[in-house]
Amino acid sequence: MAAEAASLAGHLRLGNLIFLYDDNHISIEGPTALAFSEDVPRRFEACGWWVTRADGHDREAVSRSLEQAAAQGDRPALICARTHIGFGSPAKQDRESCHGAPLGADEVRATKAARGWPLEPAFHVPPEVRRLLEHRKAERAAASRAWDERFAAWRARNPDRAALWDRLHTAAPPAGLFEELVAAAGHEAQATRALSGKVLQRAAALLPGLVGGSADLGPSNNTELKGAGSVGPGSFGARNLHFGVREHAMGAIMNGLALSGALVPYGGTFLVFADYMRPAMRMAALMGLRAVYVLTHDSIFLGEDGPTHQPIEHLASLRAIPNLRVFRPADPLETGAAWALALERLDGPTALVLSRQKLPVLERPAAFQPEHVRRGGYVLVEERPGAPAAVVVATGSEVAPAAAAARALGIRAVSMPSVELFLAQPAGERAAVLPPGARVAVVEASRDLGWHRLVGPDGLVVGMQGFGASGPAEALAEHFGFTQAQIHARLAAWLG
Amino acid sequence: MAAEAASLAGHLRLGNLIFLYDDNHISIEGPTALAFSEDVPRRFEACGWWVTRADGHDREAVSRSLEQAAAQGDRPALICARTHIGFGSPAKQDRESCHGAPLGADEVRATKAARGWPLEPAFHVPPEVRRLLEHRKAERAAASRAWDERFAAWRARNPDRAALWDRLHTAAPPAGLFEELVAAAGHEAQATRALSGKVLQRAAALLPGLVGGSADLGPSNNTELKGAGSVGPGSFGARNLHFGVREHAMGAIMNGLALSGALVPYGGTFLVFADYMRPAMRMAALMGLRAVYVLTHDSIFLGEDGPTHQPIEHLASLRAIPNLRVFRPADPLETGAAWALALERLDGPTALVLSRQKLPVLERPAAFQPEHVRRGGYVLVEERPGAPAAVVVATGSEVAPAAAAARALGIRAVSMPSVELFLAQPAGERAAVLPPGARVAVVEASRDLGWHRLVGPDGLVVGMQGFGASGPAEALAEHFGFTQAQIHARLAAWLG
Repeated sequence: MAAEAASLAGHLRLGNLIFLYDDNHISIEGPTALAFSEDVPRRFEACGWWVTRADGHDREAVSRSLEQAAAQGDRPALICARTHIGFGSPAKQDRESCHGAPLGADEVRATKAARGWPLEPAFHVPPEVRRLLEHRKAERAAASRAWDERFAAWRARNPDRAALWDRLHTAAPPAGLFEELVAAAGHEAQATRALSGKVLQRAAALLPGLVGGSADLGPSNNTELKGAGSVGPGSFGARNLHFGVREHAMGAIMNGLALSGALVPYGGTFLVFADYMRPAMRMAALMGLRAVYVLTHDSIFLGEDGPTHQPIEHLASLRAIPNLRVFRPADPLETGAAWALALERLDGPTALVLSRQKLPVLERPAAFQPEHVRRGGYVLVEERPGAPAAVVVATGSEVAPAAAAARALGIRAVSMPSVELFLAQPAGERAAVLPPGARVAVVEASRDLGWHRLVGPDGLVVGMQGFGASGPAEALAEHFGFTQAQIHARLAAWLG
Repeated sequence: MAAEAASLAGHLRLGNLIFLYDDNHISIEGPTALAFSEDVPRRFEACGWWVTRADGHDREAVSRSLEQAAAQGDRPALICARTHIGFGSPAKQDRESCHGAPLGADEVRATKAARGWPLEPAFHVPPEVRRLLEHRKAERAAASRAWDERFAAWRARNPDRAALWDRLHTAAPPAGLFEELVAAAGHEAQATRALSGKVLQRAAALLPGLVGGSADLGPSNNTELKGAGSVGPGSFGARNLHFGVREHAMGAIMNGLALSGALVPYGGTFLVFADYMRPAMRMAALMGLRAVYVLTHDSIFLGEDGPTHQPIEHLASLRAIPNLRVFRPADPLETGAAWALALERLDGPTALVLSRQKLPVLERPAAFQPEHVRRGGYVLVEERPGAPAAVVVATGSEVAPAAAAARALGIRAVSMPSVELFLAQPAGERAAVLPPGARVAVVEASRDLGWHRLVGPDGLVVGMQGFGASGPAEALAEHFGFTQAQIHARLAAWLG
């Protein structure tokens, strides 16, 4: 019912929006009256829309309604166009039987006969329609040329704004983005959501088209662009969007902003509430849109809010969406890199999965280069000479304790912020990180679905089997087996 | 915003529903006016609700409103109670700072002082409150005893209805349910959604509490209970619910029906639209509720509707939800068994994932017993003596072509309608199906996430890597590599 979008469109007074409601009183199961008795005009009026009614088969009436709607200034407009499904079909007009199925050849002929339309050819276009279309084509071509001329004149008069226009319409990210964002993340131990907030400020300075906000969780998602103002009714020059508690509309609006070709949208909510925007995220993945989801409070370690708010299956279920890249960074460097990779990516969306709680800054080996994060997974702790051929892989908040355990046990530790990105590397790159024949264990405070691709059927995944519980993060770590000592003990037993 | 539920409650004229709207004008990001300017009373009136306003801090006014609301006969009621968040706190009243965080010890003291409340003890209960509660306790205990007496008298006067009441409140399924439903599925090649519709009729005859419907896809989901009437305004003795295009409300309403203790709810939609009801499905899993989701059109083979309607990641993402059992049956026997196992299960929900297209009836080995389906996976084609130790596993529509390929190649084929159920079996049971050391391949027209648990890191999963495409099912099978010949060739190459 698009209730979220309608509510926000009314609030923002989107006067350029005209919605034609094809009100045919038919749903798949039968008359809409089986399940629906809303006073639709009144509901949209309650959301600040201008509403009118028209006979949807009366072209003049629809045309007049469109003109009135366009004249409404700062109110979106709804035209409730009463129509008849299967209009003109003797046997099927106003029946649900023509909702999901074609009329069929016989009924098409019967409809044409009833309307006095030629039966042959099957696809008949009258000459006056052809003439009208030729006329419109010429008319629109002239309008397009006139627009091009006005635009060229505007560019000549406004060189600064034309330069901004060009920057906004350059999809390629600015040079040095990766290094800039890694540097912006700094070197301080913080929650990755807080680090993301720092990186975002720098990203916004580098990409003038970066705009976004949160589904009423801005202070928790750290999504506010400082000093960039709030988008509101009549105030569209700002860069912070307040989506309200409307995750689904947020995801859909992000898709629209990305399609503009000028804007790079981001949107924040808790990871567990990504479920509410999943259909829109799927569309972004299917359409190959650059959108960035800022999904914080990424595990049971959000603590007291308990199992309703603790994501368990969400990492696996996002990783299952084709062409959506999921990134769960572990510290400042990975958080800056994750944002850079999300913004560099032009052919699909990225989910940044971020911790509520403070995480330590990782120590990295001498051979490490920040560019290694581009591979999705990299060697964080090198094995001791002569150590068993075993690797522990971890993501996000589990990297530090897994790395400490690996150091103590003398085995290799790999940080893998993006498993999709890692699996997309050439076999040689992957083998340099996970040597063929090495046993692999994974630590991630999440459902284990998917990780057996790395560990094998009987391999060790230190993960979550069921839902979480309410309590302080430290108590939950102890209860569910994620303290450093418990991870060490699991890995030691696994090494045998 | 619960828009779907509000719309349906108004349509159904649920006069027993009173909703208190805590209208405090504050959201997490600041005043609700940042993102919200709906005329809420008008919006609910448009949905058929009776609406009133009250000062939410005026107990008498709220009490009067509740009495008026209860007297509204057949309209649900909304009481818009204007309140002040952090009421009485000198520093935090009407501020977003007390939305997600406690007032803190100092501000609690300041609030008590400002209201003239004793500062000690910290949790002070005045004697008159204790007296009031003692009085209410006695009053309610008497009311409870009176109700028990009325109920006993009703039972004595209405033995038939009392027997129905007892049947409705018996959670355990009737004896022979499994055999009855396997028999009800018959022996005819049909789409599993059509078989599900047949099984459902028998299940409804055996379980008087079975009620359900579809989110306006009844004719496609085959969810209608024949001759059982439609629930509508004032007509609650029927068993078919018309949820309308409201998947989220459907899932939530199913949870409420299950919590009644008397009803066993089912709800249908397309598998791809399960995304819209995911938060409610997660709650059913978390609360351990018996609910059955009928999810049809389960793969790219739904055909022409194309990638927006073709589920790819949905099987994996549902399998990721803890305590949700997913069943993808392949033929009549498995469809009957799947329904029986879903209804027998008292501690959580089940998703039945069903084909749009007709599937052949499987041939099974002499040793097969229908009870084997209880193990989640079973041997469908026995290997030829001396054959390589290799097994092909498949689900749903991919079982028949995989089994044909296995027969031709002489290897074992396993049908695995529920991988969760299979993985929950004792190791010995699992080993009888997938012998330790045997190589395993999987065929499922879905994202492969999760199957490496069976096949290992470099094993073969004949699945989908990306989104689908629009076309006839046969053309899609050819394009994506799921014809019997293509599956045969992939397996032959894998066997080497």
